Amino acid sequence: MKLSLGEIAEKLELELRGDAATEITGLANLLDAGPGELAFLFNPVYIKQLDRCHAEAIVLREAHAHACDLPVLISSQPRLTWARLARLFDPAPLPGGQVHPTAIISEAATYGNNVTIGAHAVIEPGVRLDAGVAVGPGCFVGERTTIGENSQLAANVSIYHDVIIGNNAIIHSGAVIGADGFGFEFDADVSQLVKIPQIYSVVIGNDVEIGAGTTIDRGALNDTRVGDGTKLDNQVQVGHGTTIGANTAISGCTAIAGSTKIGAYCMIGGAVGIVDNIEIVDGVEITAMSLVSQSIKQKGRYSSGTGLMPGLAWKRSIVGFARLDEILKRLRNIERHFRK
Amino acid sequence: MKLSLGEIAEKLELELRGDAATEITGLANLLDAGPGELAFLFNPVYIKQLDRCHAEAIVLREAHAHACDLPVLISSQPRLTWARLARLFDPAPLPGGQVHPTAIISEAATYGNNVTIGAHAVIEPGVRLDAGVAVGPGCFVGERTTIGENSQLAANVSIYHDVIIGNNAIIHSGAVIGADGFGFEFDADVSQLVKIPQIYSVVIGNDVEIGAGTTIDRGALNDTRVGDGTKLDNQVQVGHGTTIGANTAISGCTAIAGSTKIGAYCMIGGAVGIVDNIEIVDGVEITAMSLVSQSIKQKGRYSSGTGLMPGLAWKRSIVGFARLDEILKRLRNIERHFRK
Amino acid sequence: MKLSLGEIAEKLELELRGDAATEITGLANLLDAGPGELAFLFNPVYIKQLDRCHAEAIVLREAHAHACDLPVLISSQPRLTWARLARLFDPAPLPGGQVHPTAIISEAATYGNNVTIGAHAVIEPGVRLDAGVAVGPGCFVGERTTIGENSQLAANVSIYHDVIIGNNAIIHSGAVIGADGFGFEFDADVSQLVKIPQIYSVVIGNDVEIGAGTTIDRGALNDTRVGDGTKLDNQVQVGHGTTIGANTAISGCTAIAGSTKIGAYCMIGGAVGIVDNIEIVDGVEITAMSLVSQSIKQKGRYSSGTGLMPGLAWKRSIVGFARLDEILKRLRNIERHFRK
Repeated sequence: MKLSLGEIAEKLELELRGDAATEITGLANLLDAGPGELAFLFNPVYIKQLDRCHAEAIVLREAHAHACDLPVLISSQPRLTWARLARLFDPAPLPGGQVHPTAIISEAATYGNNVTIGAHAVIEPGVRLDAGVAVGPGCFVGERTTIGENSQLAANVSIYHDVIIGNNAIIHSGAVIGADGFGFEFDADVSQLVKIPQIYSVVIGNDVEIGAGTTIDRGALNDTRVGDGTKLDNQVQVGHGTTIGANTAISGCTAIAGSTKIGAYCMIGGAVGIVDNIEIVDGVEITAMSLVSQSIKQKGRYSSGTGLMPGLAWKRSIVGFARLDEILKRLRNIERHFRK
Repeated sequence: MKLSLGEIAEKLELELRGDAATEITGLANLLDAGPGELAFLFNPVYIKQLDRCHAEAIVLREAHAHACDLPVLISSQPRLTWARLARLFDPAPLPGGQVHPTAIISEAATYGNNVTIGAHAVIEPGVRLDAGVAVGPGCFVGERTTIGENSQLAANVSIYHDVIIGNNAIIHSGAVIGADGFGFEFDADVSQLVKIPQIYSVVIGNDVEIGAGTTIDRGALNDTRVGDGTKLDNQVQVGHGTTIGANTAISGCTAIAGSTKIGAYCMIGGAVGIVDNIEIVDGVEITAMSLVSQSIKQKGRYSSGTGLMPGLAWKRSIVGFARLDEILKRLRNIERHFRK
Repeated sequence: MKLSLGEIAEKLELELRGDAATEITGLANLLDAGPGELAFLFNPVYIKQLDRCHAEAIVLREAHAHACDLPVLISSQPRLTWARLARLFDPAPLPGGQVHPTAIISEAATYGNNVTIGAHAVIEPGVRLDAGVAVGPGCFVGERTTIGENSQLAANVSIYHDVIIGNNAIIHSGAVIGADGFGFEFDADVSQLVKIPQIYSVVIGNDVEIGAGTTIDRGALNDTRVGDGTKLDNQVQVGHGTTIGANTAISGCTAIAGSTKIGAYCMIGGAVGIVDNIEIVDGVEITAMSLVSQSIKQKGRYSSGTGLMPGLAWKRSIVGFARLDEILKRLRNIERHFRK
């Protein structure tokens, strides 16, 4: 892929300060960029890196252009410019619009125009794949599941029966949608856990991305739901009957239990735990590895846990933590002396 | 699926107060239930929801029947009734008892009556599948592995060699059983980690459910074991040589290191961490996201971690946490004054 | 597999004290070992277990030989001896050097001598598999990806396009390498998250092991890198653009965010969280379930979190934790009295 700075400026409607004929062959970060590569100044914190930058040109805000001797493209939103430019330089193979002869497609499945189905994929009866859908090699799509226009499943994705997926989904390898929620009842007569069949399903909105190895369970008494525009990173777990609002981003390895409601426009850090049967309002931010054990009723930023410490100091702190109730009592005792 | 209230009352031996001819087409929760749907009152906390409930009928305890104007089915254990009823309304496809022609089955594998093997599954030499086993599309079953009667593997499950799985297992997509345990020894002569081959295997009891993306590693000097009736949720990790007792439930994303023993009838919350080489007795409950770093010798409920706080308050608390040892010293200094 | 003690002593260059003709059929731990089995005394803590040990013979250090009535093999490094011995007794099937007729291999892919490709594997155009590579059944290898000599992929591994994997890799089932990093930019004009295409890839060094269900994302502005000899356990997540040094071991379920640098010879416990854009120097040890939220500039052992406590005591401690800032203020107030 090659584009001249002039072509890029035109396509993305950016002001160019430099030679329009200069050829760009790729994108890179400020430190690693070399000849032919375009780099980005997202954050003025890194402005000093411009001095030793070997990029062919830089995308930056007008206010920082003065600090740069290289050719520049002026963008009021360099990160959005990046997102658009990266599409032009993306080597990812595009779906070819073919159905591989080794795919096993039920005669009772239907699919629209320009659908791609990879080798060894399995499409069960009653499935509906809308126009432009791509199902990767080795995927399984269970009975009566529907997948909306232009949605893409990478290789080895598993989708159970009766799942509904909207348009423009991107679902990465190893993701599992619609497995049974974790529902059991202890039967005291036989001292065993009895399985509660998970008879509802999963409903995914439009424009959702689901990361590699992420699992979204089907519901027991209502559908598990993921709202439009929401993005789930890798190895996220979404419990049965949980609802996630629109345009929320959930980072990797976050575990969400069942029957919980998460709002729209939330930002949930990695490896967060969220317990069952709570509600989190819109616009909440949770920092990495926090445990949300109660409903959150006000938007804002929340955290739990402790800071990282050298091992020995930490051991002393956890001793103190276990004695916090005692510490409060001793404080009160002392304070009593002063009140007299 | 349609059943009359009368048929349901008869099948489940429940007392019906209402018209036996009323048709039920599905189950739902109290808030969402509509015409034709049966809802449940599990917990009297939700008794007020009965007023605005649009269900066709309600399953509840005798003691709560007075609060309900709708037809009711009286159950002394509504959650067990739910588990049984949900089986009747479950749309999940049943195994068809066929072996798909694209499955690759070693001639040195054996299988019993009514076995289902899905498209593109791979069954290696020496495998034994007992009567009624269902292996989903795209599954891999390694050499000499045995799977007991009526066990079901969803699509894209991977089972390594020499694994033993009991009867009535349910194993969800993306689960991996019998991969190598994480065993290395640092060889100082070459400054490298040397792999310790994991020559033992995994033994799974009867009536075990294993969630999507869950991994159970094979052992190095003894088998990794999961007891009868134990249920593992999605994305659980079980380390090499670990033993989990019977009828224990382990929620999603819990990480269990190797050579640990977990008792029977434990309830382990989601995203819990359990270190290696410890023992947890029967009947222990661990709350979500706790770290178990020492053996637990008494049954009961255990926790670690801190509560969720607004970001700024939390930052002050973690500063205080790091100073807990100092706080204790300062307290002692002050108390010395009063002892004089 | 059968080997005499004499053969073992010769192969591993160990001193034997006992009958060279004694046959060994397997390895086991001290407690479970029986006739024909060889056990190991790794740690003198377990020296008393020798009294009730029913092994055929024991591998131990010279200094502990006096405590053992059984035949012994003297090793200055019993754990390394174990690693070497276990290779001899490993029942794992070896790659057969065959290409299964159901594998779909692009004519534009190339492969070296003695390559094994399992049933239903899919090898895309431009892939290069070097000599001795084994690709398991159901694996997907994306366009232009290269895999170095003798690397082994277990069943159902997914590797995206343009990934580079070195020699002697071991990659377990369900692992996903090269899925898109989690990169989005919020476009305020449309109130939506816009995807940032992840146009770089993943580069894995030599002698790397990657556990079941582990995910390593491709980078956005630079490659994600895993150094030579590094070992990742199951269900580890490595974010886009992150670099992990050589000979580092990362235990199960650890979540590493993007653009972070982890040094060589680190030991990272299970279920650890590591945030984005930080640096961890060589030789750092992180204990299980710690959160690393800042760069670590000195080698050593680090921890975060709190100790496990009975539920009620823990609830009192988390109340105290939330009041730590107040506790510090009250302490200062009291101390002021004494300063007067």
